[in-house]
Amino acid sequence: MDNSPARGTRDLLPATVAVRDHVLATITAVYHRYGYQRIETPALEDIQRLSGGQGGENEKLIYRVLRRGLDEVVPAGTDLKDLVDLGLRYDLTVPLTRFYGNNQASLPTPFRSFQFGPVWRAERPQKGRYRQFNQCDIDLIGEESVLAEVELIEATTEALAAVGLAGTTVRVSDRRFLAALAGAAGLPEEAWTGLFITLDKLDKVGWDGVRAELAGRGVDGARVDGLQATITGLRGVDPAKLGDTLADTVPGLADEVVADLAQTADALAALAGTREVSWEFDPTLVRGMGYYTGQIFEVAHPATSSSIAGGGRYDQLIGRSLGKDVPACGFSIGFERIVDLIDTAPTGARVAVLFEADVPLTRVTAVARELRADGTSVSPVRRRGKFGAQLGRLTEWGFTAFAHLKADTEGLPERRPLAG
Amino acid sequence: MDNSPARGTRDLLPATVAVRDHVLATITAVYHRYGYQRIETPALEDIQRLSGGQGGENEKLIYRVLRRGLDEVVPAGTDLKDLVDLGLRYDLTVPLTRFYGNNQASLPTPFRSFQFGPVWRAERPQKGRYRQFNQCDIDLIGEESVLAEVELIEATTEALAAVGLAGTTVRVSDRRFLAALAGAAGLPEEAWTGLFITLDKLDKVGWDGVRAELAGRGVDGARVDGLQATITGLRGVDPAKLGDTLADTVPGLADEVVADLAQTADALAALAGTREVSWEFDPTLVRGMGYYTGQIFEVAHPATSSSIAGGGRYDQLIGRSLGKDVPACGFSIGFERIVDLIDTAPTGARVAVLFEADVPLTRVTAVARELRADGTSVSPVRRRGKFGAQLGRLTEWGFTAFAHLKADTEGLPERRPLAG
Repeated sequence: MDNSPARGTRDLLPATVAVRDHVLATITAVYHRYGYQRIETPALEDIQRLSGGQGGENEKLIYRVLRRGLDEVVPAGTDLKDLVDLGLRYDLTVPLTRFYGNNQASLPTPFRSFQFGPVWRAERPQKGRYRQFNQCDIDLIGEESVLAEVELIEATTEALAAVGLAGTTVRVSDRRFLAALAGAAGLPEEAWTGLFITLDKLDKVGWDGVRAELAGRGVDGARVDGLQATITGLRGVDPAKLGDTLADTVPGLADEVVADLAQTADALAALAGTREVSWEFDPTLVRGMGYYTGQIFEVAHPATSSSIAGGGRYDQLIGRSLGKDVPACGFSIGFERIVDLIDTAPTGARVAVLFEADVPLTRVTAVARELRADGTSVSPVRRRGKFGAQLGRLTEWGFTAFAHLKADTEGLPERRPLAG
Repeated sequence: MDNSPARGTRDLLPATVAVRDHVLATITAVYHRYGYQRIETPALEDIQRLSGGQGGENEKLIYRVLRRGLDEVVPAGTDLKDLVDLGLRYDLTVPLTRFYGNNQASLPTPFRSFQFGPVWRAERPQKGRYRQFNQCDIDLIGEESVLAEVELIEATTEALAAVGLAGTTVRVSDRRFLAALAGAAGLPEEAWTGLFITLDKLDKVGWDGVRAELAGRGVDGARVDGLQATITGLRGVDPAKLGDTLADTVPGLADEVVADLAQTADALAALAGTREVSWEFDPTLVRGMGYYTGQIFEVAHPATSSSIAGGGRYDQLIGRSLGKDVPACGFSIGFERIVDLIDTAPTGARVAVLFEADVPLTRVTAVARELRADGTSVSPVRRRGKFGAQLGRLTEWGFTAFAHLKADTEGLPERRPLAG
């Protein structure tokens, strides 16, 4: 029988889980120090909620769940969607929005939420990507100032440093800046999304790619030249002068946006003075999701070319079901990416009580209990086969020491190290 | 908009998650000391595997997942099952069986597995039961002697004691004993399952219920009288004499079964000498699942009338896909039941930096950072409304102290306790 896990999913073996648990525990400890509190929502959500548009492209990747109690033969002319009432969540943001609406009365203001859990996307299987994977999000709901942005960046980069990923660079932009940029370049509003998507890939497609994309939307080359000049100029901007430079360069950029970015710049400069963290303004940073309304961020680390965390402000999402805007800002650590960068978890001693077949069971148990009394991890293992070969296997399985228990052993058997 | 979670599921708020995380961390620490290693398997499994018979009644409760890429209009005459290829797991045993078959070559012998994770059952919603809940299993695969049973009982009762549930009673029986009992009473084999199911409910239905059930299967009352006498006699058996008593009372009970039960009795007597744990032989204990092949167990605690843990030996399940028997024994803690018995998790200090609107953001962040430096949990909270009322809310939200930060505060604001 084939014992593989379902296509696109995977089993996690003990050594892998140990690394993941270590990374999660480290991140959790940092987030707790910032006052973030873990919540949980169910894996299944109503299909209408998952399909409401908030999930963007992810909504095409939903695992849909059959209603219960249906007839086993489908009546002719049935629409597939009539058979479905639930789906597996594809992110933790849609559930958070629902959670906040459902439980607002019991939650603090501001509410510091920490979520860690699996999400599911029916993506085409590819190397290193799985259809079930874990997301690791913090969100600060109810704080309107960039205090939220700054705190989330500080907490996230500190959590990353705690797992061994110090020396991160935070890339900063703002959706309101991008909109002003596109407007100032004279682009019609219906071309903005296309521009943003192309800008996001600028390093791959180059300015010729942007020109081609926008030409397809009837934007002439001269406007793209202007855009290119502005963006190129802003890319190397002196962080200390970010506010002034933006105000000078992008006509129509609201004072509030300039002030927010200047504040974030100040705070990040102060942070960089206390930590091994740097930052830069990146006018080509876009981030995929449509729900962002203000500053957006990505975190890079020399160990990988992919970003390892990202986030931004989304002031119009949480409050939608409450009939009012609720300020919110969130940050997500790319958990699956960073665990791939961490080799091993710190482990304590693991002792095997190697017992011969003629030792009474109660004796085996009593010896293990006594060796375990100081908190050491101790497991009885039956003596089998050649002694040296078995010691080799114990090492392979992660044991660090053994104690050979024979019928004539008096007292506790001697504990001996295994060659690492 | 209705923000309730999907019917039969629930949101977990911070205080609830804190208790659950504390209970899980405590159990995990104990299981690690016994050498159990956590593994993970995907939530989705192939529907054929989930429907293979191993899940018993739970197979009627599977959440079935639609294939991807189907036409949105279902062709006439389609069977529902043709639309489905995956399902959500309803337990952690079916996945463990597959996992062991898939990864055996990389796993130790014996393999000590620890699993904690959600399972899904489309049950009729009822008070205190949810359609997504967590299971918490340890399994010892590859140890043929009752060393496995005894170790699992010791680890489980120690984990329960560590979370505050000391003083447990372990009820012990054996599927082979039950079969011999039914055989000795002259019951036809096709009536055994009915007998076992009824026996399991003996405390509710009484012997009249058993008589009625078996009469319906053509078993005459005299045979039931014999059964009643045997079981009643065994219920109060002196644990020290369990082996002899069983050998005398149940003709046809294999010597091996008697020897195993006597060994378990010895080991549990020894355990009871070191811990606040007691045990008893319970000839009416059955346990629901059909896959058990040897000793079976349930753990009771005075705080609740439901059992809080249970398990048993299942030697023919793990090896089925490998074409050989692989000895295995497992124990499950009723995680959802025990977290309901635990009131609160131990928490450290949580400090709110209550800042006035005119304090510069970088100052708020710097103060929080400095107060956080010793590891304390510190969160900025904007001053709003009446001071006393806000302090009341902070207490309600779980803060234990606050520091009032004003524009003219010099140095660090004083940290003051909140009335608990």
